[in-house]
Amino acid sequence: MASRICDSVLVTGSNRGIGLELVRQLVDSPTPPVQIFAGCRDPNGQRSQVRNHANTIQKSLTYTTSPTSIAEASKLVETKLKGKGLNLIINNAGVNIPGSLAETGKQEMVDVYTTNVVGPMLIAKDFHPLLCKAAAQFPHQTSMSCSRSAIINVSTLLSSITTCPENFSVSPMYPYRVSKAALNMLTRCLSEDLKKDGILVMSLHPGWVQTEMGGPKAPLTTAESISGMMKVITSLTEKDTGTLLDWEGKNIPW
Amino acid sequence: MASRICDSVLVTGSNRGIGLELVRQLVDSPTPPVQIFAGCRDPNGQRSQVRNHANTIQKSLTYTTSPTSIAEASKLVETKLKGKGLNLIINNAGVNIPGSLAETGKQEMVDVYTTNVVGPMLIAKDFHPLLCKAAAQFPHQTSMSCSRSAIINVSTLLSSITTCPENFSVSPMYPYRVSKAALNMLTRCLSEDLKKDGILVMSLHPGWVQTEMGGPKAPLTTAESISGMMKVITSLTEKDTGTLLDWEGKNIPW
Repeated sequence: MASRICDSVLVTGSNRGIGLELVRQLVDSPTPPVQIFAGCRDPNGQRSQVRNHANTIQKSLTYTTSPTSIAEASKLVETKLKGKGLNLIINNAGVNIPGSLAETGKQEMVDVYTTNVVGPMLIAKDFHPLLCKAAAQFPHQTSMSCSRSAIINVSTLLSSITTCPENFSVSPMYPYRVSKAALNMLTRCLSEDLKKDGILVMSLHPGWVQTEMGGPKAPLTTAESISGMMKVITSLTEKDTGTLLDWEGKNIPW
Repeated sequence: MASRICDSVLVTGSNRGIGLELVRQLVDSPTPPVQIFAGCRDPNGQRSQVRNHANTIQKSLTYTTSPTSIAEASKLVETKLKGKGLNLIINNAGVNIPGSLAETGKQEMVDVYTTNVVGPMLIAKDFHPLLCKAAAQFPHQTSMSCSRSAIINVSTLLSSITTCPENFSVSPMYPYRVSKAALNMLTRCLSEDLKKDGILVMSLHPGWVQTEMGGPKAPLTTAESISGMMKVITSLTEKDTGTLLDWEGKNIPW
């Protein structure tokens, strides 16, 4: 029997695209997590597809990016876990604005940063006690893993400051690129901060995927991307905390 | 006779600390810029020291970080330049909050990001026509330099995602680190974007300096730091656009 990825997992932004496919593949895995929390701002929104999969996604959770509701979501998850910890958080929720310098103003910069960086920061902070509790449930296991306790921040190749000159002209995207480089620093800070608790933290690039954000020209289907991501997620150890990897496990420079 | 650094320069955050010392050393240089614009939010604020140097800083400018006032500042500078371009912008204005995860909330993250990243983005955008005009005034010069047209974003060693594990425990500073990594991506995007206009863009780390932000334990005086920064600024060429250097000209990894 294949071993279980983890007992409990929260996936944010699960109403469509990568988040929805992550939840579906988790549900369909040979030994699915006992509790899957599918978080999204608006499950009944116009473009949400999560309703079509209500039967497969038995455990679900709704939250928004306001500080209060993330705190409320953590209380709800705590209640549903009945004294157990939360093993894995996949911070997948994110927005993109294809903004050139001329198209970008204060509002665009702050809005994208709030969703892509402040959201994951607040989730890490508010769910920290539950992640600590999960890590402590492995008293004899000193190594890190997603089955023990981990945060995966969904990042992008476009977050790489190093490789920016290779692709800037094709996709300027000031608000998105700047926010995702910031998210990588958040990943790195959290990975240092939470080592003492046994919590693994890393950034994961799903590839260029055929989603509403990626568009129809993208080379990867969501199924292919998430299949690769799931392999990476299950193979992570303490050597991977604080890294930026792609869906094939390859390292991306900062 | 020493050559002039540039004809015109704008320094933001010049009410105290590094910004004030930058303006003083520019004024005191053997051949000072013809026009020095000393920008700050509140020159009459409680902790502002710029009033004590009113006699040496003859040209001065006041602006705030609201989108409207940065646009207004660019109009004011345009008027004072009387048809000429602006050669150099030093985006020095910045704030720090020494925030651990527990101390950091949405407000702290957004406030620090707005000043440290959105401010420089809006300045680059609103002053872009003046920088282009300055670059075009060197028709026979294809190389980049601060005497032609440039943006220097004042960054920090703590912006480095690569070296974060070396110093995170000493200074967690979530909002500051995350904002400065974002600023580095902004630098990198702008450097690609503005190459076509002949505008050099780079990030500069002033060292750990005895300012209100750096504290009394810092090893460098503002005079020492700014003296080094001035040498780096005058030596920059097109090979340096899109880089992160320290006050001694050494490269810092992203």
